[in-house]
Amino acid sequence: MEPMSAEQLTAEVVDRLDGTPNPRLREVMQSLVRHLHAFAVEVSITDEEWMQGIAFLTATGQKCDDVRQEFILLSDTLGLSSLVDLINHAGDVPGATEPTILGPFYVPNSPERAFGASMVEFDDGGEQTIVRGTVTDVAGNPIAGAMLDIWQNSANGFYAVQQPDVQPATNLRGIFRSQADGTYEFRTVRPQPYPIPDDGPVGQLLRDTNRHPFRAAHLHVKVSAPGFVGTTTHVFDAESAYLDSDTVFGVKGSLIRSFLPDADGELVCAMDFALRADS
Amino acid sequence: MEPMSAEQLTAEVVDRLDGTPNPRLREVMQSLVRHLHAFAVEVSITDEEWMQGIAFLTATGQKCDDVRQEFILLSDTLGLSSLVDLINHAGDVPGATEPTILGPFYVPNSPERAFGASMVEFDDGGEQTIVRGTVTDVAGNPIAGAMLDIWQNSANGFYAVQQPDVQPATNLRGIFRSQADGTYEFRTVRPQPYPIPDDGPVGQLLRDTNRHPFRAAHLHVKVSAPGFVGTTTHVFDAESAYLDSDTVFGVKGSLIRSFLPDADGELVCAMDFALRADS
Repeated sequence: MEPMSAEQLTAEVVDRLDGTPNPRLREVMQSLVRHLHAFAVEVSITDEEWMQGIAFLTATGQKCDDVRQEFILLSDTLGLSSLVDLINHAGDVPGATEPTILGPFYVPNSPERAFGASMVEFDDGGEQTIVRGTVTDVAGNPIAGAMLDIWQNSANGFYAVQQPDVQPATNLRGIFRSQADGTYEFRTVRPQPYPIPDDGPVGQLLRDTNRHPFRAAHLHVKVSAPGFVGTTTHVFDAESAYLDSDTVFGVKGSLIRSFLPDADGELVCAMDFALRADS
Repeated sequence: MEPMSAEQLTAEVVDRLDGTPNPRLREVMQSLVRHLHAFAVEVSITDEEWMQGIAFLTATGQKCDDVRQEFILLSDTLGLSSLVDLINHAGDVPGATEPTILGPFYVPNSPERAFGASMVEFDDGGEQTIVRGTVTDVAGNPIAGAMLDIWQNSANGFYAVQQPDVQPATNLRGIFRSQADGTYEFRTVRPQPYPIPDDGPVGQLLRDTNRHPFRAAHLHVKVSAPGFVGTTTHVFDAESAYLDSDTVFGVKGSLIRSFLPDADGELVCAMDFALRADS
């Protein structure tokens, strides 16, 4: 009797999934099996490597808790999160601001703050800066009353949510609105590069692959307005380290901005946002 | 500025892994990234589906403990375990007994038992049977002193290791040796089909894909002898349910045997094993 081939086994597993009632789940699972098997065959995974993979995935799941999501870190560092973002939002882009990943530090319901107000509630020596610009449609017409939900880290490298005993909960986050002419403005400190949490299996994988755990310095911005497709994006500091090697592959050239002194000697980051109409 | 394409992003992630010092880890990780990204692109994974995948993997890791390995169950039910077995041992086969997966219930250091002795230490109404045959090389020459390490479940469907408070620890497992003429023989009960543990994420996935959790009835056998390549395999009962739909894809046609009454009216399963010389 002829032993089964890898192709036959893969086909048998795919066939076994034919009875999946939900057609989308069927499509996803059958594609997953084909690609998973193709990977195992391509590199001829050994018994020992298979067991190492099982142990790695188990440790990754067991590192997760209420405030730590190691599988998202794994997805981020393998570029999968950015790929999913690109797959789902690339079509949004013509003329509109490019999106990038949400990241693990977003906290909803930030305080509403006035035009030009500061988000700084904790002073650890950050470099004071103004961020300003205009929210428009893709033709450049101003959007009044757009909501800008902003969050970023402090000079010490941490987000407020990571340091509940050090930083006020609402430090360096806030909701701002564009004015009648589409302009927005706020005061903050310059964001800092920071390492993703690297004391778990994902950190070990980064070390084993000779990669650093750092993200380039950035502010997070969710921009939305009635009648428009909202976007979740970053503004990267053009002088930051790691722009070419952001460990989660979140940097896009169109989102990099300089922080420059204005006529009054104040540091300013100018960033405009363009939203696509909700069709 | 032109947004990045999926192909460009995948290439960037693969390039980032170029610095991996261990060339085998580099090869495995770069292949993994290519196939993982190709899967996400092929089915256009949505943001919500990505989050469902993260939640599924997290729950799978958190279901694991000292006696439960949910990621192995996932690998088994996606056919990956059988594929890894096939990749690593298909080349062993010409003339030799086909291997199949080890499964999660192997316990080392089973008691040595005499030729013809019984492994039954707990009576729950199983059908008494004799298992016998010959261990040979691929040319059919008998191998004396081959070790056969056997384990199977009881009539209630469970392995002793699953029921420490019900079955004696060494029930239905034992180590036998082939005689000078290569023959071996032992008494046992007929094995039963049984469900893999299905109260976790993998069981839910089986239900969502309209699959049952059962394995076809089988004995496990590890056969080894000095100078030969050992094999880990099963003997399947030809009358068992689920031979065509074993939930872990472990059934191979060459391993199916009938349990038939002999001249004395005793039930007998005849199974020969052939080992390839260790070259």
